[in-house]
Amino acid sequence: MTDPAAVRRDLAAQSIDTPSWAYGNSGTRFKVFGQAGVPRDPWEKIADAAVVHRLTGAAPTVSLHIPWDRVDDYAELAKYAAEQGVGVGAINANVFQDDDYKLGSVTNPDSRVRRKAVDALLACVDVMDATGSRDLKLWFADGTNYPGQDSMRARQDRLTEALREVYARLSGDQRFLLEYKLFEPAFYHSDVPDWGTSYAHCLELGPRATVCIDTGHHAPGTNIEFIVAFLVRAGRLGAFDFNSRFYADDDLMVGAADPFQLFRIMNEIVEAGVHTPDSGIAFMLDQCHNIEAKIPAIIRSVMNVQEATAKALLLDRDALAAARAAGDVLGANEVLMDAYATDVRPLLRLVREEQGLDPDPLRAYHRSGHQERIEAERVGGTQAGWGA
Amino acid sequence: MTDPAAVRRDLAAQSIDTPSWAYGNSGTRFKVFGQAGVPRDPWEKIADAAVVHRLTGAAPTVSLHIPWDRVDDYAELAKYAAEQGVGVGAINANVFQDDDYKLGSVTNPDSRVRRKAVDALLACVDVMDATGSRDLKLWFADGTNYPGQDSMRARQDRLTEALREVYARLSGDQRFLLEYKLFEPAFYHSDVPDWGTSYAHCLELGPRATVCIDTGHHAPGTNIEFIVAFLVRAGRLGAFDFNSRFYADDDLMVGAADPFQLFRIMNEIVEAGVHTPDSGIAFMLDQCHNIEAKIPAIIRSVMNVQEATAKALLLDRDALAAARAAGDVLGANEVLMDAYATDVRPLLRLVREEQGLDPDPLRAYHRSGHQERIEAERVGGTQAGWGA
Amino acid sequence: MTDPAAVRRDLAAQSIDTPSWAYGNSGTRFKVFGQAGVPRDPWEKIADAAVVHRLTGAAPTVSLHIPWDRVDDYAELAKYAAEQGVGVGAINANVFQDDDYKLGSVTNPDSRVRRKAVDALLACVDVMDATGSRDLKLWFADGTNYPGQDSMRARQDRLTEALREVYARLSGDQRFLLEYKLFEPAFYHSDVPDWGTSYAHCLELGPRATVCIDTGHHAPGTNIEFIVAFLVRAGRLGAFDFNSRFYADDDLMVGAADPFQLFRIMNEIVEAGVHTPDSGIAFMLDQCHNIEAKIPAIIRSVMNVQEATAKALLLDRDALAAARAAGDVLGANEVLMDAYATDVRPLLRLVREEQGLDPDPLRAYHRSGHQERIEAERVGGTQAGWGA
Amino acid sequence: MTDPAAVRRDLAAQSIDTPSWAYGNSGTRFKVFGQAGVPRDPWEKIADAAVVHRLTGAAPTVSLHIPWDRVDDYAELAKYAAEQGVGVGAINANVFQDDDYKLGSVTNPDSRVRRKAVDALLACVDVMDATGSRDLKLWFADGTNYPGQDSMRARQDRLTEALREVYARLSGDQRFLLEYKLFEPAFYHSDVPDWGTSYAHCLELGPRATVCIDTGHHAPGTNIEFIVAFLVRAGRLGAFDFNSRFYADDDLMVGAADPFQLFRIMNEIVEAGVHTPDSGIAFMLDQCHNIEAKIPAIIRSVMNVQEATAKALLLDRDALAAARAAGDVLGANEVLMDAYATDVRPLLRLVREEQGLDPDPLRAYHRSGHQERIEAERVGGTQAGWGA
Repeated sequence: MTDPAAVRRDLAAQSIDTPSWAYGNSGTRFKVFGQAGVPRDPWEKIADAAVVHRLTGAAPTVSLHIPWDRVDDYAELAKYAAEQGVGVGAINANVFQDDDYKLGSVTNPDSRVRRKAVDALLACVDVMDATGSRDLKLWFADGTNYPGQDSMRARQDRLTEALREVYARLSGDQRFLLEYKLFEPAFYHSDVPDWGTSYAHCLELGPRATVCIDTGHHAPGTNIEFIVAFLVRAGRLGAFDFNSRFYADDDLMVGAADPFQLFRIMNEIVEAGVHTPDSGIAFMLDQCHNIEAKIPAIIRSVMNVQEATAKALLLDRDALAAARAAGDVLGANEVLMDAYATDVRPLLRLVREEQGLDPDPLRAYHRSGHQERIEAERVGGTQAGWGA
Repeated sequence: MTDPAAVRRDLAAQSIDTPSWAYGNSGTRFKVFGQAGVPRDPWEKIADAAVVHRLTGAAPTVSLHIPWDRVDDYAELAKYAAEQGVGVGAINANVFQDDDYKLGSVTNPDSRVRRKAVDALLACVDVMDATGSRDLKLWFADGTNYPGQDSMRARQDRLTEALREVYARLSGDQRFLLEYKLFEPAFYHSDVPDWGTSYAHCLELGPRATVCIDTGHHAPGTNIEFIVAFLVRAGRLGAFDFNSRFYADDDLMVGAADPFQLFRIMNEIVEAGVHTPDSGIAFMLDQCHNIEAKIPAIIRSVMNVQEATAKALLLDRDALAAARAAGDVLGANEVLMDAYATDVRPLLRLVREEQGLDPDPLRAYHRSGHQERIEAERVGGTQAGWGA
Repeated sequence: MTDPAAVRRDLAAQSIDTPSWAYGNSGTRFKVFGQAGVPRDPWEKIADAAVVHRLTGAAPTVSLHIPWDRVDDYAELAKYAAEQGVGVGAINANVFQDDDYKLGSVTNPDSRVRRKAVDALLACVDVMDATGSRDLKLWFADGTNYPGQDSMRARQDRLTEALREVYARLSGDQRFLLEYKLFEPAFYHSDVPDWGTSYAHCLELGPRATVCIDTGHHAPGTNIEFIVAFLVRAGRLGAFDFNSRFYADDDLMVGAADPFQLFRIMNEIVEAGVHTPDSGIAFMLDQCHNIEAKIPAIIRSVMNVQEATAKALLLDRDALAAARAAGDVLGANEVLMDAYATDVRPLLRLVREEQGLDPDPLRAYHRSGHQERIEAERVGGTQAGWGA
Repeated sequence: MTDPAAVRRDLAAQSIDTPSWAYGNSGTRFKVFGQAGVPRDPWEKIADAAVVHRLTGAAPTVSLHIPWDRVDDYAELAKYAAEQGVGVGAINANVFQDDDYKLGSVTNPDSRVRRKAVDALLACVDVMDATGSRDLKLWFADGTNYPGQDSMRARQDRLTEALREVYARLSGDQRFLLEYKLFEPAFYHSDVPDWGTSYAHCLELGPRATVCIDTGHHAPGTNIEFIVAFLVRAGRLGAFDFNSRFYADDDLMVGAADPFQLFRIMNEIVEAGVHTPDSGIAFMLDQCHNIEAKIPAIIRSVMNVQEATAKALLLDRDALAAARAAGDVLGANEVLMDAYATDVRPLLRLVREEQGLDPDPLRAYHRSGHQERIEAERVGGTQAGWGA
């Protein structure tokens, strides 16, 4: 049986990283719809992230994206974040928006471009040094659009070379997270298309290299929780980029498209006992709130992860183990479904109250006046978005 | 047996529409990479389209996109096109890039926005009147991102109402083409997600309403040529938007991802005898040349459609019919594969020479100096793209 | 706000049909694993179905499959069913297991085979006459495995002809349900692959012809609830074949793979007010319990549909309508998710108690001794399965 | 430029393994359609395989499936094969058709079943010792159908333990091939679902363990040639199971569904120079000829692989390298497509004639009288199929 106090303690300790770019504008290739009050610089993004943490108690760090969050003095930015009550999460390296990267960054056939890309990655480690961030998150838009366009094999060689150089630059407790993605923006092949590719590179590099699972980056039908279980077993799951999708990389709110899948993922995490921050796994959001209000959407996403975790923590693992050992297919499934069917919203309200928080973060946000304030104050300038 | 002269005649008569926007810049949500020499206005787009037609002899019309191709005087634009040797193809209505359309255009819950959207569609019919264009192509970005966001059923009612009003506005030989798309930019549901929805609306509206098949707009595993065969049989196939894809709506060059599929599609067209312009089916390209040279990519795409058609025309239909009647699975497949395996490039070179064209349009383009000319001349101003 | 008494009344009235074949053995092409106590004839299948109804109060009919359920006297079988407390649901026509059907049944290139197939369908109407069954469920395995194998267009002609003849044979309140399926056992094309094809044929035939949605028969990414909403709006949704799937037509217990999807489907049903038996929509299971205990799996499936329905009934539709009208994306989604998050198991226990049933049908089954009884009694003979 | 003599030499040397079970009956879960003349035992399967080799000159080995090909004396079977002119290819271990394996074989929660399964695998190595076969092909049907049913992590532990024991039993040049499969017959999770899982286990085991790619075993959208390139680069590509599919694991003739994909795969093989038998990569067919004539279908499949290989060998790699180095997207793609567009059937006829073979193996088969002979002789007894 589960221990109610331990469940509440684990839920209170849960930490979900929010990404700076989710507070800015985003959209599809067809249109970016702007929203009133959107931040115009990294400082304002951090201010919004701090609001999410103050209301949920569960979002203590904010990830940055370089160059979208470029500032002159990163130490000062980190200091500001600390004053606001949040830490700096992962540094996300962006090597896909310069004209030079049209045919790839670290896998580009042109060695000059590769050098430029690697330098950009190394500069991200400088940001880590300045901010105290532990994690360098690497996602490459690299790939090709047409069969024959480039040698997939040669590109793996170039990727290996670049990763080695960056890996060698890490120090202290720094590590890197290698993200994979099936497609987009590359439409024929991606250089790191799946977890197997990411894992293989991590194995070659060493223990500081781990895999980042973006829940929206898989082929249809992929069993994500299997990958979670496999990588946890292998000691190579570094992070999640949480979001949800019905079709491709839709970047909807995590838990919005398939809450049962999110529960199954968190259940593998809880079953392996790696749900708390000391596991070293970073639980991050990576979403686009194209048409819905941004801060409320992020609060909601944090709550969705909490609810999935709560259900997993309530699962009767003794009963599950017994049913599994007996080969009782329906019985084992029933134990799982019983946990999933439980309404954990009251439990989470209680956990929040025990933390001195409002039990309903969304209503608290709407009452807080923050939205009205930023809509009034953030006038003029250029709203932050993917391009800036 | 096939009649070689008839095959060459049909190939010479083939007509493939190219879209004005394919000559402009395009990209993904991550980045639009500009290219030198890209048109800055509709006139320059038409000039490029005319080059493609002069070299291939098979691209006599260019489709416009409103408002991307907004001009003061559409009759003048049509006159310019005629002087350049091309006609105006379909008018593509764009009701997805105004801030008002965040939650939909003709299906928006707000009646004011619906009115605005319908007016925009009606204005496209004005453009048709002015340019002599026959086809109004309707693709709606409408849909929702989250379950519950809006009533799918109510949105069908609104869609029906809007379509009726636009349909009633058509006159002469005008008709409309209703395009469907599984997803993007809507990520939970699209209001016209599949051919069945489009077909059902067309049936209700009347004979001027036909379905447009965009080859990149289907769920994985969809047999597109079945849809082609079904709609031709029902007399409701109005047009193709040709492109190709490996994953989602990648908008790669038609025939680049799955040339066998393109052949199978054209084979259904040829088997039904509707491959020539008098069939009323519009064969249009709808592609994005994000990283490859644009005009050569469009020439190449036209050639790919020609090659698929040539193979279909060479298929031994008597032998096929005999094998089918005998229930000879392998034999029937072999007849089809023999046509597909044929290298039709020599035949198409001959067809072009008979038309007085260079047998190799791509080399002819590179020799023509057009690319150097536009790169030198089209300096300054704003390159055309999806946003303008 | 929802009316608790009305909710309980609607739940008590809910009717879910169970299929005779789900009580027999099933498997994959790799292996059929037999289970002890499995019925050896239609009488024993009906006896099991009656047990499910006695325990759940929600499964008052059992569907038959001809020829799997062939008996000499169908009226007697119906009488036996009535004595057991259940009615005869749909008659499922099987025209795919005779050697003659290798290249198709009603679409076979050989007219002799087509005649045989149509006669088999007409014989099913005789069974309907004898049993009082209202619905003829037509699923065709017809299609081709290789491109070119047969004319997809000619096969539509043959299909049309066959459907017309069968349709003309219907009388009284008889109707037919035309099921579609993307693939399997046909691997290149299916003659009725999607809802659009089924719907188009039904429109041509007349009002007695309606579409049957098997929840496992779609391409990846298909929004099934959209199809539900569309067909209900068009008055052509005849039935569901419920099951669930992660990949292809896995035929797992409904609600097992994606309970949120099941809820969204039932939500469209409830929103349209067609969740009760008088709507004329047949809610049927169509599942394979390959490795799990069969009767408990069916009980569980009935309960899963009940739970999804209960959540939909509890949804605050006034709040939903208000949020939708206001364009409040997050608010509308939240109303939906609040209903989904509700633990409706206590409510359903209450509904059962009000019906004089055990609140926990699964425990009641295990206590009932039925399983031990059938395992002891059903020894010898040939267990029923897909082949017999 | 390519060297014509070298191309013909490589084509003449090409070796494609055919599987014993493809000569027997197969089908779907819905129906197995028998065919006249089908073998009744392993000896007759080998006789058919020898016919394929005599006609194509390219199918010198036949793979066995244990227990489907169980005989008393395997050395005698190998001797018979040699007399017929073919060798014994891989030994395929079948641990999925015993009732004990309902919940898995080597990953079963019951240690007794695991022991039985491992013993069955070890017995396959005995067969290898007796026949001189080099390769043990391991495909596991193991997995679960319902979330929660068993611990995915514990099953990996059990898998690891079993693989280690079998690996330790290998001697001489023996090795094993670990195949992966996304789904079927397991419908929730498979224990070896993707190449990453297979590769990770191979890395742990040692150099004798390599990955087998079945071209039908991937999620929709998977770029198979990327996996080929990656595994060749890593030195861990052991074998192909060739077939083709439109949807799931359709097991159609290789090259039938997507001949361009087959070409791209063989192009990666040729680009890496591992297309000849000395590469150690086994090129095997693994297909089901459910409705088409079996021996002709296998001949056709061999020819399809030859044609794809011929196109890849003709590709102008210098021009490709130049275009790639120049970042010429269209140019590089054009070089590839030019090779693909080439009609290589005349070249292959020439290669066959140089080998003293009939240039048209299919016509030669039909003239040979073999089919009439086996249909007349193989009467009575039980036709071989998946179950026996």
